[in-house]
Amino acid sequence: MEKKEIQQVVEARKGNLTEEMRAVAEAEGVPPEVLVKSIAEGTVVIPHNRRHRLARHCGIGKGLRTKVNANIGTSMDVADEAREREKLDAALDALADTVMDLSTGGDLPGIRRKLLAACTVPLGTVPIYQAAIHRTRAGGGIGSMTADEIFAAIEEHGSDGVDFITVHCGVTLSALERLKREGRILDVVSRGGAFLVTWMISNGKENPLYSDFSRLVELAARYDMTLSLGDGMRPGCLADANDRAQFQELITLGELQTYALREGVQVMIEGPGHVPLGKIEENVRLEKEVCHGAPFYVLGPLVTDVAPGYDHITSAIGGAIAASAGADYLCYVTSTEHLGLPGPEEVREGVITTRIAAHAADIAKGVRAAAAWDLAMAEKRKQRDWAGMIALALDKRRPESIRAASPPRSSDVCTMCGDYCSIKLVEEYFKKSQIPNPKFQTEEVE
Amino acid sequence: MEKKEIQQVVEARKGNLTEEMRAVAEAEGVPPEVLVKSIAEGTVVIPHNRRHRLARHCGIGKGLRTKVNANIGTSMDVADEAREREKLDAALDALADTVMDLSTGGDLPGIRRKLLAACTVPLGTVPIYQAAIHRTRAGGGIGSMTADEIFAAIEEHGSDGVDFITVHCGVTLSALERLKREGRILDVVSRGGAFLVTWMISNGKENPLYSDFSRLVELAARYDMTLSLGDGMRPGCLADANDRAQFQELITLGELQTYALREGVQVMIEGPGHVPLGKIEENVRLEKEVCHGAPFYVLGPLVTDVAPGYDHITSAIGGAIAASAGADYLCYVTSTEHLGLPGPEEVREGVITTRIAAHAADIAKGVRAAAAWDLAMAEKRKQRDWAGMIALALDKRRPESIRAASPPRSSDVCTMCGDYCSIKLVEEYFKKSQIPNPKFQTEEVE
Repeated sequence: MEKKEIQQVVEARKGNLTEEMRAVAEAEGVPPEVLVKSIAEGTVVIPHNRRHRLARHCGIGKGLRTKVNANIGTSMDVADEAREREKLDAALDALADTVMDLSTGGDLPGIRRKLLAACTVPLGTVPIYQAAIHRTRAGGGIGSMTADEIFAAIEEHGSDGVDFITVHCGVTLSALERLKREGRILDVVSRGGAFLVTWMISNGKENPLYSDFSRLVELAARYDMTLSLGDGMRPGCLADANDRAQFQELITLGELQTYALREGVQVMIEGPGHVPLGKIEENVRLEKEVCHGAPFYVLGPLVTDVAPGYDHITSAIGGAIAASAGADYLCYVTSTEHLGLPGPEEVREGVITTRIAAHAADIAKGVRAAAAWDLAMAEKRKQRDWAGMIALALDKRRPESIRAASPPRSSDVCTMCGDYCSIKLVEEYFKKSQIPNPKFQTEEVE
Repeated sequence: MEKKEIQQVVEARKGNLTEEMRAVAEAEGVPPEVLVKSIAEGTVVIPHNRRHRLARHCGIGKGLRTKVNANIGTSMDVADEAREREKLDAALDALADTVMDLSTGGDLPGIRRKLLAACTVPLGTVPIYQAAIHRTRAGGGIGSMTADEIFAAIEEHGSDGVDFITVHCGVTLSALERLKREGRILDVVSRGGAFLVTWMISNGKENPLYSDFSRLVELAARYDMTLSLGDGMRPGCLADANDRAQFQELITLGELQTYALREGVQVMIEGPGHVPLGKIEENVRLEKEVCHGAPFYVLGPLVTDVAPGYDHITSAIGGAIAASAGADYLCYVTSTEHLGLPGPEEVREGVITTRIAAHAADIAKGVRAAAAWDLAMAEKRKQRDWAGMIALALDKRRPESIRAASPPRSSDVCTMCGDYCSIKLVEEYFKKSQIPNPKFQTEEVE
């Protein structure tokens, strides 16, 4: 067996500041000793497999900026490697904090390795896909997959340099029983969850990722891969949200988090999914309770089922609310969700929309420098400096093209109001009357 | 003076059910006697000037579906009547509940009359624009406008059939003093508010819409125009949100609402604007307190200043939160906000995005039949019936085109997962195990 990588949790417990911790503390403006403590107690993770070269390190959790993940990857119907590379570039260009390769079509190891080589931020995967799909392609049913094949896929991902993996360890026989007794509309909408459920039912056996969790933890420790404990029981529609199956799984994930952390492995918890707006906060609070403050990684949540084509927006609404309630990490959902595989443009739009949600939440969370960015933009608005506004914008491309398509006659206004611009109308008067307001003495924008 | 129209409030006080009330009660599934009481106490309004023919009546307020308004209208730089007609059609096609004509360019009365004739939902305006712009065009400063000219514009709008008007009655000398002492970044970002501030400063006099409010109320009563008390002191950036100037104005609006309601005039209260996510709820609660439950009509609110080009999304996040906290009526913001005048496509996108926010909030509010729509969609998802999903979608055009652009090999899946569709994978197993769940015995979708 190879020598283990440095483990962030183990170093943190010794009070050692790793290069990853130093970089995150600096980028986020958090005192290093606070970050070390958070990693030791499991409320912050820094996903990094040392076999993967990163341009910047990414801390996820308590006291840090809310992070945004972009899912890319081929499918059975659309397995185009070049396009996935374009999607990766789109995600990085739009400033995704992490990327997940969820490929299910084409040469899975080959695609993963190429994406890893090109991806300058932490990359995550779902190894069960590879195990199940290789078995299916070999002509076997998913049920004929062996536990060893599942663990071999995980080991391969670790050895390739994957920074974090989604593992649906909470899809247990007990959770399945809860789900059956619940009587859901959409039983299982997690792809990894569905592979495992199929396997468990075919074999009448417990999920190996649960029954042999210690083996998973050993593998994770070897590469210091962060475990993202997947929610295979996440609701697939509002009506199924916050039911007994979902919370049963969450309780299990909390127990597993405690074990893995004790073994020096970093853990995040994944969350829903489709959740009515008024039920999002209780999800976040419950996760923080039963998982002892472990970083919470939510998919959306989507606040309505009825807007296919706009699920980047339904999930931005839910994501902003979840993050403001304490969720640490938002997985984007694109506008093609429920309809098809996204292309590079939808990836870009998805990352930007989710970054808006994350930033809006960060202001509410009081994350350092979040509000200062808005203040700087407001100053540019007061100056009616459109070039300055666009330079500060979260995305520059779209405002640039809107402005170019609708040029005003006076350059210090826009075509919405022209010279009836309210700011321009009253500016003279308020110039003389301004009193310095202490609340504007905030930190600089980075 | 002409004979007064029927006044909804006066009829409601007598216990009379008007045709407007009957239509709204039926559409919303609210008992007629409850609606009559709400109108009498001012917690619901039904904006309808009987000179304007409507295809459907629109109730706004307590216990009703959250409504969506689309602002259209020319500007100084883009005064194209045909384009405004297209924007009206786009708004109606996307199912805006109301439309406001905010024209500031071209033949203002002519444009208004044409839009009124074509608009089958309640139409609102801001008469101060016409008074100020006609005076400016005549070569005078805004300060040379007379109070009589302001009231004449209001009378003309009423006589033309305008259903509701925004009147910035709370822009008082006292509010202005509060604003000066506050020391804002962006002092006044309301166009109507800025016209009045300019007038007040030039003349050193109180706002006639405040000092002569009884005259305004008489005019409104004559045509049963609903008054939408504008927030000229609304914040134009997050840093200015929830300050003393804003709340000073709100207190005044509450007092005016009490007076107008007593005189039999329907009143809504307008709200911000740019507000950090964590400060939205207190805005709604405060409005409901000091305005005694009057319908709250918010613009956005935008939860960040830094995303020009995406303000339909920044405002959908804020609008969903505001409406779930009790706001009754969302004014859309389009993606061209802060950059230029929207075109028909941005109008369409704005209405759809805001309807998503309103619907998500209605589920949280427990509005009748809101959740049933999502349940119906979930059933189509379970059946993997894409035609059925698209037929039920809030907007059909976008999901149709996404699906058409990415056709799967198997028609009962999508290209995201292909035959690895989780629903398809586990379907057989759960078919046998489903237990009827009482929470799904909900009402039918309308």
